[in-house]
Amino acid sequence: MKNSLYIVIVGCGRLGSDLANRLSRIGHSVVVIDTNEDTFNDLSSDFSGFRIVGDATELAVLKEAKLKNADVFFATTHGDNVNLMVAQVARKLFNVPHVLARVFDPRREQVYNRLGIETICPTSVAAEMFLLAVASGRAAQGEAKS
Amino acid sequence: MKNSLYIVIVGCGRLGSDLANRLSRIGHSVVVIDTNEDTFNDLSSDFSGFRIVGDATELAVLKEAKLKNADVFFATTHGDNVNLMVAQVARKLFNVPHVLARVFDPRREQVYNRLGIETICPTSVAAEMFLLAVASGRAAQGEAKS
Repeated sequence: MKNSLYIVIVGCGRLGSDLANRLSRIGHSVVVIDTNEDTFNDLSSDFSGFRIVGDATELAVLKEAKLKNADVFFATTHGDNVNLMVAQVARKLFNVPHVLARVFDPRREQVYNRLGIETICPTSVAAEMFLLAVASGRAAQGEAKS
Repeated sequence: MKNSLYIVIVGCGRLGSDLANRLSRIGHSVVVIDTNEDTFNDLSSDFSGFRIVGDATELAVLKEAKLKNADVFFATTHGDNVNLMVAQVARKLFNVPHVLARVFDPRREQVYNRLGIETICPTSVAAEMFLLAVASGRAAQGEAKS
């Protein structure tokens, strides 16, 4: 991969804004899309990317984001269906090579994966971490004492 | 740690029910607490633990769950404040040695940790996974192709 990537992020909630800030800070070109302009308040003052107010399920908005030039596409809204839809469009219509989507319902992960979209499921990840804590006893009394 | 643990889980949503099913399956004694009885429908047919319909912010409910005998306590509701409160009670009043809480707002993690409660933040974890995908290029074209 190139050192500096062109990254389009849909959704500027906690996850989207955190990713945008951190990726911008390490030198990537970032475009963030959200329907709600207020969410851009979570972008840090040193965020050097672009903000687009709009609905990413509309092709015109994705074109405005120059999605065909993107190296990476992240779908991070709170709606699994929106994430699935825009991720598919990014993958199939704009041929973005790396497409990742957040999906809250673990049962939808398989559907995404069959469609060639990589998914990250916070619910599944959290479950694994809780189980790991039980298995390894890493939340030991010593660490957790008051 | 003992092989078979006594584990109390507050919240029987996707995360809580997944944990309850998996921990029960591997032989732990599990008690699940939720205010909404319908959530117990997500427990699998082989779940051998106990279900308590009640508000875990009430001491009587936690006593009913025999929290003082618990080895592990998980707070997995969708409310960060509820998770913080019940986790504190489990730690301070019932002396549960291992207390873990889900917290959606990463900014609250520090507060929890200062109070001796280990936290798992799905938002932070998801962010790390997205960043890792960018860094390693694991969402490579080969994997993601249609």
